[in-house]
This record gives sequence, structure tokens and C-alpha cells, in this order.
Amino acid sequence: MISQDMMGLGKKRSTIREIFEYGNARAKIVGRENVFDFSLGNPNVPAPSVLTEELKGFIDAEAADALHGYTSATGIEWVRESMAESLNSRFGTKFSKDNFYMTCGAAASICIVLKAIACPGDEFVVPAPFFPEYRCWIENTVNGKCVIVPARTEDFQINFEAFEASINENTKAVIINTPNNPCGAVYSEETIIKLSEILKAAQKKYGHAIYLISDEPYREIVFDGLKIPFVTKYYDNTFVCYSFSKSLSLPGERIGYVLVPDEMEDSKDVYAAVCGAGRVLGYVCAPSLFQRVVGKCSILTSDITVYETNRKLLYDGLINAGFSCVKPQGTFYMFPRSLEADEYAFCERAKKYDLLLVPGTDFGCPGHVRIAYCVKTETIERALPLFDKLAKEYK
Amino acid sequence: MISQDMMGLGKKRSTIREIFEYGNARAKIVGRENVFDFSLGNPNVPAPSVLTEELKGFIDAEAADALHGYTSATGIEWVRESMAESLNSRFGTKFSKDNFYMTCGAAASICIVLKAIACPGDEFVVPAPFFPEYRCWIENTVNGKCVIVPARTEDFQINFEAFEASINENTKAVIINTPNNPCGAVYSEETIIKLSEILKAAQKKYGHAIYLISDEPYREIVFDGLKIPFVTKYYDNTFVCYSFSKSLSLPGERIGYVLVPDEMEDSKDVYAAVCGAGRVLGYVCAPSLFQRVVGKCSILTSDITVYETNRKLLYDGLINAGFSCVKPQGTFYMFPRSLEADEYAFCERAKKYDLLLVPGTDFGCPGHVRIAYCVKTETIERALPLFDKLAKEYK
Repeated sequence: MISQDMMGLGKKRSTIREIFEYGNARAKIVGRENVFDFSLGNPNVPAPSVLTEELKGFIDAEAADALHGYTSATGIEWVRESMAESLNSRFGTKFSKDNFYMTCGAAASICIVLKAIACPGDEFVVPAPFFPEYRCWIENTVNGKCVIVPARTEDFQINFEAFEASINENTKAVIINTPNNPCGAVYSEETIIKLSEILKAAQKKYGHAIYLISDEPYREIVFDGLKIPFVTKYYDNTFVCYSFSKSLSLPGERIGYVLVPDEMEDSKDVYAAVCGAGRVLGYVCAPSLFQRVVGKCSILTSDITVYETNRKLLYDGLINAGFSCVKPQGTFYMFPRSLEADEYAFCERAKKYDLLLVPGTDFGCPGHVRIAYCVKTETIERALPLFDKLAKEYK
Repeated sequence: MISQDMMGLGKKRSTIREIFEYGNARAKIVGRENVFDFSLGNPNVPAPSVLTEELKGFIDAEAADALHGYTSATGIEWVRESMAESLNSRFGTKFSKDNFYMTCGAAASICIVLKAIACPGDEFVVPAPFFPEYRCWIENTVNGKCVIVPARTEDFQINFEAFEASINENTKAVIINTPNNPCGAVYSEETIIKLSEILKAAQKKYGHAIYLISDEPYREIVFDGLKIPFVTKYYDNTFVCYSFSKSLSLPGERIGYVLVPDEMEDSKDVYAAVCGAGRVLGYVCAPSLFQRVVGKCSILTSDITVYETNRKLLYDGLINAGFSCVKPQGTFYMFPRSLEADEYAFCERAKKYDLLLVPGTDFGCPGHVRIAYCVKTETIERALPLFDKLAKEYK
């Protein structure tokens, strides 16, 4: 007499969470320092110290009832202005505060967008590899059909042949995640242009809008000075779903936004639907103190140099050990091929060395494993000989 | 091609918000101090100073990456323990941490509970007067049928005859809100017992659980030393949806919980469904810093004496002016009868005196108006002569 779907979703622990718990249990036996837990994407560098100063500053300067009071459902005006300025100064866009709706993080942003646009019978296309919760939200939050596009494993750009075949008259939206969790790939400008062209042609063919939902929590975590193509500049019907979880190391504070550009078809109506969806999902406003904090820190990031250091060390080490891996251009994840076809068996074998990896199947990409390298550099240094031993078992 | 329901909900501004905006516009003309805005339920007393000290203490004492990191989806263990201890010490209950699921406030709590239990064809019964968003969530979050029970306006306890008639085999749950927004009534123990008996009989008759969803953000704001009957002690299948918004004056920080007692039928399954529903609605965890803060402050409240002072002043003043009103026993709302049958017309007339009141129809109780007296006492003192003039127009 309760929702069996919800009960099922609540009982099924995520693979990642299972591995994390296993790691905790192992730590009690062999010591925390001897467990190489690469399962969780929890940033290990602190928020910038300026952010902490701003946080304290608001607490000291503002009256508590105002500081912790309700904000407008869409978010504090000057905070939304700051969001616009931050993007405009970095990407040459022309957003205003009215394009932004502050949310409780990227998960909230994506659920709100799905709820705002979904109609019965809609299909949502997701290129693999992808963040596993997309499927949960498409199927359960809006009862949509989740259409997976197989990964292009040679470079983790989009498999366009399969992508085109996945679009039909029921396609309501495509969800992309660049820089990508789990593989760290960044879609090139060429990829974004080609994606846009296919979607524009499909819109024309089917006579209705097809939305691009760009999930961008890793937008600021890119390496080698890479420039990210800002998706709204290429395709008008783009929602940007953002979170400060990763860039400012604030995952627990639940703060982000939905961006609805003016260029979007019927953008005012769509923005209203975003507001309605926020209401219906039980979001009253984004947390008020952290709205202010990110309003002051919107162009900052945590010190992400450690991620770049870790990437080089881990990537070179894995290649030397004989692994095959697309070199990540961003995020703090690496997604090498498993050394045997069944990556679950491979992950089990890795456990012998207390190397905790996540199987790729949940990300829609079997035969790969995810390594979250948001850990101390020393952890990677000490793990590399173990990856080497693991690889030797397959030689 | 977007959700017309969501667009409609986003475009339709709430009556309360309309009045609030009108007040802001008037303030520019006649001065802020001459607008008597009784529309919004935003606490006007600050959070206790101990809370601010705890907030700063966490920022100083804990490493930022841990402090702002993801917590368990259900909430931090010691925080949930604190929630249990706080209730157990005050209400003689025997909850443990495992009965609590931390949320982004009461709106989130209610949406999560509805999503956890709703199945196609379900009906949800709501005694009037009620918080208007209940209808929105029942109809839109879970596509349920919202069945309103007319108010018992003589004392704002439950109209049991109408209530019993509203229960049928499709009834999944009843939502109650005591102390009540908009009228300030507190359900007596007698009311809770009778409500429980009717629901127990209905469960037996229809052969399935009927849940009571007790929305309790005003639980701590009661007057004259009144003791609140704690609902789970009377009826096993009770969810408690709580928020610290009102008791600790933190409405913008979005922090509360769902309580699933062990006594509930299949309580472990129901708790799992709550976890699943949280996931599906895009809630990853409750905000991490404020989880800790309310964990430390769970037995505190803001200084609510001003609400009691205001209640006496306003109630006596209204009665003297000739209004008819059930005396509130809690919250910071008063819900007198309108002085003419059409309370919209009455609210318009009140505007002449810059008295901003909310029509009762949205709360399911026409012919009444809500006065939110979470304002400075001086504001009430200065408003009373105006209420007097307004009443004289009807003599």
C-alpha cells in the first residue's frame, strides 16, 4: 500500500555506497591508510579560505532573522546578478538575473527541469557514460523513457551515429555532462557544434523543441588551460544545471542553479514552469546563507591544482602498468578499461590489494572502472605499485 | 510542449505573495512604517544567540571539506540521535536515530512522504483550514485527489461528521497541521483521540493502512504553557513532518526531518520508501552545516514571548473592536471572521487603512482573514486604531 517503486529505490543501495561501506569495514581491519578508496566523488580540497571569511562575515554583519529568512523562491536578486556576471565575464554571454533560478544543487536543478518540461510519453536521451541518477530521475521523477546512447570508448566524445538513431518524435530532451563523470572527458567545440546541428535538424523535422540539459558541476575543473565551449552559445534550447558542490567543495550545502537563457523558445513560459516545478517538488527557496556565500564567490574555485597533479601521477602510472585509458581533461575521475571483460570480476580482484574501484556498468559503460582521484596525492603514490601488481596478474 | 501544469503553477503568484508585493509598493508611497503588512509568516524574532555561536563554532572547529561535505542521505548520525533525544525528553517517546530522515524543511518532508506512499487512485483528506500548498502537492507532486473537510469554525477543532464522510476505501492519508496555520488552533487530546479512533476503524473496515501526516512546524510555538499531544503516541501510522523554520527562526535554511516511528506498519519498508522518494525528488542530503547546527539546538527555540505578547494585544484589540475570533493557542497567526460575507471585499476595504490581510478562501475557509502577527509589537499597537476604524464602517 506504499509506493513499491520508492521502496525499491530506497532499499537498493548504490554500488558506490556499497563499496564505500566495504572500505570502512576494511579500514577497521587493515588500517585506514591501507585502504585505497577511490569510490566517492567527495572533493578532498577545502573550500577557498575567502569563502570561509565571507561565510563568517555574513553571520557577523547581518541580523539573524534577515540572514536566515525566506528568500524569493527564485533566489536573492543580487545573488542571481552575481551568477550572471560570473558567466558573462568568463564566457562572453549576456545573461541577466532573470535567467537564473537558485536551487538546492544540481540534483535539484535536473529534477526541476525534467518536471518543468516532461509530458506523458516523453523520451530522454542520455549519451553514455552517464551519472547513474539520470536514469532514476527520468524514470521515476517524471515517468519518462530513458534512452541510452552507447559510449564512444575511443575518446568519450559522442557516438553520433547511435545518437542520431536514438532521436525520434517523442524525444523531449538530451542530458549531457561535460566535463564528464565518470570519464573526465570534455566535449570539444566540434562535438557541441555537431550535437547542436543534429538537434536543430530534429526540431525542424519533428516540429517541436528538443531541449539540451547541460549538467555542469565540473565546469570549472579542467586541466591544461582548456577552454570549455559554453553550450547555450551553440544551441538556444539549452538548460544549464549547475552546482557549486565540486568547484567550491560544498557538496553538502546543496546550492546551485538552473539557467534558462532568453534565447530559449518561449523562455518566459519555460522559466515559469521551472518555478512551478520547484514548488511541486517541495523546494521553497535555496538555502539562504549559502545563496549569499556563493553570490560572493561565484568566480572562485577551490585549489584544484591537486586534482591536476593527481591526474598526471595516476594516468602515467596506469599507462606504465599496462592499462588503457582515455586521458581525462577535467573532473577528478578516471575511467580506464578493465583488464578483463567482466569489470565486476576485475573490481573483486582489485579488492585483494584494497584498491576500491567502481564498475562501469552503472554508468552505462561496461568493461571500464571509475577511479575517483579526489584523494591525497600520497594515496595515489602508494596505490600505484598495487595497480602494477594487479596488472601483472593479467600478463 | 512543456508541462502546462508546471507553467500554470509558476505563473500563478500566490495571493500572499501578491499582497506582500502590494505592501512593498505602498511602502514607497506612504512609508514603510505606515504599511501594516500582516501577510507573511516570516519569523521576526532572530534565531537564539546560542545558535549563532554554534554556527560559528562549527566553522572554526571543523575542516571545511568535512564540514561542507556530503552527509549520509538520511542525515548525520549524531544529529538524528539528537532529534530523537529532543523528542524523547519532552514527550516521553522512545525514538532512535533510525526513525529520522533529515530533510530540506517541512515542504520537502511532506512531498517526500506523499511520494513515498502514493499509489494511483489515492485520496488525501485535509481538514480545513489548511496550508494552501497541501493541495498543490497532493494534486501535482503525486497526482492524488485532495478531499477537503469543511472547517468547524466555532473552535477550529475537526468537523468529525464531515471528516468521517470524507474517508473511503481510496483514502491513503490525512494531513493535519496543529498548531494550525492559518488559525492558531491546537488540536486537543480529545480531538486527537477521536481522530485516531475514526482512522483505526477505517483501517479495519477497508483493510489497509491509512496514514496520518502530522505537519508540525509550529509545535514549539504554543501559549499559556499548553501541552501538545504528540500524535505518534495516539496513532501508530503517523508520519511527523517537522521544520526548524519557525521554532528556530531559520525558514531560509531549509532544515527539518521526517519521522517514521517503529510502531508504523512495515516501518522499515516505509522508511526505505521515504529514502527512495527523497532520491527521486532530487534531495541528496539536508544542508550539512545546518544539520549540525540544529543537532546542537534541537531543544531550543527563539524567544517566542513576543508572539504571546502580540497575540494578547491583537486578540483583545480585535474583540474590543467588535471582531469575532477563535483565540489562537499557538503559531503567530490569527484568523478572525471577516466583517462581511465576501472576505475579499473586506480585505480590499482594509487596504484603505493599509492593513494587509490574507483572504481565508485559499486556506479552505471563506469568510475569514489571516493576520500574521510575527511583527513588532509596536506595529500591532499602531494598527489597532485602524482595525477599530475599519470595524466602525460596518456598524
